[in-house]
Amino acid sequence: MSAEPVELTELRRRAGEIADLGGIGGLLLWDQNTMMPSGGADARADQFAALERILHDRITDPALGKLLDALESFEASADPDSDDAALIRNLRRDQHKAVNVPTELAAEISSAGAHAQQAWMAARDAADFARFAPALEHVLDLTHRYIACFDAGGEFAHPYDVLLDDYEPSLTTEEVKEIFTTIQQELVPLVSAAAAAGEDGRVFPGHFPQDAQRGLADELLRAVGYDPEHWRLDPAVHPFARSMAHTDVRVTTRWEEDDLAMAVYSCLHEFGHGLYEAQMDPRHYRTTLAEATGLGVHESQSRLWENLVGRSRSFCEYALPLMRKHLGGPFEAIEVPQLYRNVNQVRLSLIRIEADETTYNLHIALRFELELALIEGRLAVKDLPEAWNEATYRLLGLETPSLKEGVLQDIHWGTGMIGYFPTYTIGNLMSAQLWRALSTDLPEIEASIAAGDFAPLREWLRDNIHRQGRKYTSRELLKRATGEELRVDPFLEYLEGKLLDAGLLTAPVRVPRS
Amino acid sequence: MSAEPVELTELRRRAGEIADLGGIGGLLLWDQNTMMPSGGADARADQFAALERILHDRITDPALGKLLDALESFEASADPDSDDAALIRNLRRDQHKAVNVPTELAAEISSAGAHAQQAWMAARDAADFARFAPALEHVLDLTHRYIACFDAGGEFAHPYDVLLDDYEPSLTTEEVKEIFTTIQQELVPLVSAAAAAGEDGRVFPGHFPQDAQRGLADELLRAVGYDPEHWRLDPAVHPFARSMAHTDVRVTTRWEEDDLAMAVYSCLHEFGHGLYEAQMDPRHYRTTLAEATGLGVHESQSRLWENLVGRSRSFCEYALPLMRKHLGGPFEAIEVPQLYRNVNQVRLSLIRIEADETTYNLHIALRFELELALIEGRLAVKDLPEAWNEATYRLLGLETPSLKEGVLQDIHWGTGMIGYFPTYTIGNLMSAQLWRALSTDLPEIEASIAAGDFAPLREWLRDNIHRQGRKYTSRELLKRATGEELRVDPFLEYLEGKLLDAGLLTAPVRVPRS
Repeated sequence: MSAEPVELTELRRRAGEIADLGGIGGLLLWDQNTMMPSGGADARADQFAALERILHDRITDPALGKLLDALESFEASADPDSDDAALIRNLRRDQHKAVNVPTELAAEISSAGAHAQQAWMAARDAADFARFAPALEHVLDLTHRYIACFDAGGEFAHPYDVLLDDYEPSLTTEEVKEIFTTIQQELVPLVSAAAAAGEDGRVFPGHFPQDAQRGLADELLRAVGYDPEHWRLDPAVHPFARSMAHTDVRVTTRWEEDDLAMAVYSCLHEFGHGLYEAQMDPRHYRTTLAEATGLGVHESQSRLWENLVGRSRSFCEYALPLMRKHLGGPFEAIEVPQLYRNVNQVRLSLIRIEADETTYNLHIALRFELELALIEGRLAVKDLPEAWNEATYRLLGLETPSLKEGVLQDIHWGTGMIGYFPTYTIGNLMSAQLWRALSTDLPEIEASIAAGDFAPLREWLRDNIHRQGRKYTSRELLKRATGEELRVDPFLEYLEGKLLDAGLLTAPVRVPRS
Repeated sequence: MSAEPVELTELRRRAGEIADLGGIGGLLLWDQNTMMPSGGADARADQFAALERILHDRITDPALGKLLDALESFEASADPDSDDAALIRNLRRDQHKAVNVPTELAAEISSAGAHAQQAWMAARDAADFARFAPALEHVLDLTHRYIACFDAGGEFAHPYDVLLDDYEPSLTTEEVKEIFTTIQQELVPLVSAAAAAGEDGRVFPGHFPQDAQRGLADELLRAVGYDPEHWRLDPAVHPFARSMAHTDVRVTTRWEEDDLAMAVYSCLHEFGHGLYEAQMDPRHYRTTLAEATGLGVHESQSRLWENLVGRSRSFCEYALPLMRKHLGGPFEAIEVPQLYRNVNQVRLSLIRIEADETTYNLHIALRFELELALIEGRLAVKDLPEAWNEATYRLLGLETPSLKEGVLQDIHWGTGMIGYFPTYTIGNLMSAQLWRALSTDLPEIEASIAAGDFAPLREWLRDNIHRQGRKYTSRELLKRATGEELRVDPFLEYLEGKLLDAGLLTAPVRVPRS
């Protein structure tokens, strides 16, 4: 093989610097949400802005564009599955997306998001949508200007495609619409049947001291694959995961003494995110290939550990003795079938982040429907609260007694994150498809989990998802791992099957579709 | 007044970015030494290197040089004490120092320091100086090349001046030599008289659980001025302080259950460093003026709180009831005079960081003498252990039984920090001069401290030192605050006076010099 082009060496150097700056950004964010004294917020905003300007300069640097141009023939002759070709592809895409947005517009979007977030908090506290409406209208206006930056190229068929492309590239608005149409049709009857038969009450009744919860969480996390040499666990108001590199992964949780489920399931959820980052291919360190390929795939990893693993019968078998060991009392009185039923109970509720696994995607369907209508101009901001309440009744059968339990419950729109919500559902769908594929490859998976051996699962995910990083689009990655396109049925079948198995449904509800 | 030159606006923008990057660097370092999982070290080194390259590019940017040139006439006509003039002066100095060192040499120095640090640790663990010697020789060689970068300008009279200038600008080798000559002459007899009469044993005998120590430390820190909205306290192996901005100050300590003095005095010491950063003038935020003017001044602040405050009779009066409250037992049995004597006892010992306040500067005198001989070529690296042992006997009257208690005890030389040690003593000297000046301005200071009211002291330091930031050199700053140049006598008088007051000396030892 001939020596590599000098441009490729230089491209790699630049990718390395961009990755280093990304890792630094991860630390700024992690620290802000875990360690930073509250009075440091303004200085942190300045530090973020400085870092983002430098990153933006690096990505839009015309010299990078020239390198990419000079590498065109190399790329054309390279194996498209090679690391080099993927690196060039990723950097070309990143530069294309960054140069199309004028610096002033990017700054205006960032500042409007910060202001709208303040307005959202004030509106929520005052239960007054009018305080949020002008800020949201401004965000929407800027979102339209952002979309317009990409319209000229004709690469997107629908304005919302531009937004989707930021979070989950390779999916179109049409596809997402179809997914949510099916979800609405199928989930509404399933939820109402299961909720009717479901238990009422908390997942884990009892009061559990923080230290005991921490003991349980430590043992569970170590079992699934948390490695103290490379990971940390800290409390955070809104649990999240962030890595500075594949060797430095930080996860967070929340200790609520009256709600053990918060810690247990947020630990598993964030562990899933963290493991994706930790199991990137070390050979891809300091390249774009050591990044997640999309938020949908990232969410598929967190949901897989939280739900497919954490709410399975075999995990209940494994975890119940640990719960008894660390928390005693209430867990002495229950057996696996009861635990399994408790963690899968279906309860209609108004708040997305408190929703159970089955109803969760109806909350996302609602948000997708409304944000699409906002972007298509079919819905005015002033009419949003009413539209929210109407959809809540239509999808969940619930009246919305307050704005805080309604349209003002989520931060996303205020910060400009329109097009983000669907990634939650995409992650759920993918996780079920991945589970099906890995269950075929690992027929003993349930027994392994019951025995507390999570290594086969970790290795399957490493080979099929994690170590691929951002080499393929999520669509290609899913196809390579499962042989399929994104589908709704495996997820619905998994849900119904589990509800039946747990005794939360007495008979099948779904009619198999052609 | 006329509008400010556009170049000044642009200069300020650039200073702001440099300050933001400095704050980010502070976070990387703080996290590395408090929070980072050990496996993240390699990635952190890459992130540091990326940040340092960017900072170096910003400071050496020819466009910054052009701005500074364009502002020459503005500077000449401006009040030299104005913020603008100081900002221009600082940036000119920073650029001058950075551009004189070729990028490759700077990189070589950084990498040699990292390697020598490894070699130092290996040599220390193996008690084998030969393992460290080649690395130290390489560091010395690079240090000479570094010095040579500044020789041509003729701005430094002595090669060691170049090194001093990095840590404590405005002091010369000649002045520092004179200081240490006096210190050697005067401290040796004082130490031997006080050590002879001194108590033997630990400062605070007893075993104190970490939680109780933390309770005491929290109450002490809040009393002196630790503000939880802007500060954090965390454990670290080697306690240090770092700020990301004046609004985000992080201090660290070490909880040793058999050595309460470690936590109490490291908390006060690091609080002193932290307060310097916290009380910078908010108007100077994101400029070079919100920086310390030298390490000597920084150390004067930590030593002032640790020793002048923390080891005073009035502080013992204030602290004893708190020690009884949090730690009970052993503190019920002692009274203020005993506590005061304990915390000031003089004990000859081999390890610098374990030395008491009185003997401490003999350890620094030894290091200064040897590093100056190394730089002047009068001492070869291979002869260093013997020279160390000889000086230890001459200054402390002690035999050195092992390399770990001798020449291999400190990390500084291995990391290339030659010229750094004198700042510890400079800080001690300054702290005594500052105390004298502030005692004149605040005649009730001892009573305030005994009553737990530290506000007058904080305010005096804020006005006279902290809020001046890097507006003046340390020499000018000291003169403005005390009316004096750096002097040894106030420190020696303070030491002798306290030892007499505490009953650790029965009669004066020093003969007043003309």
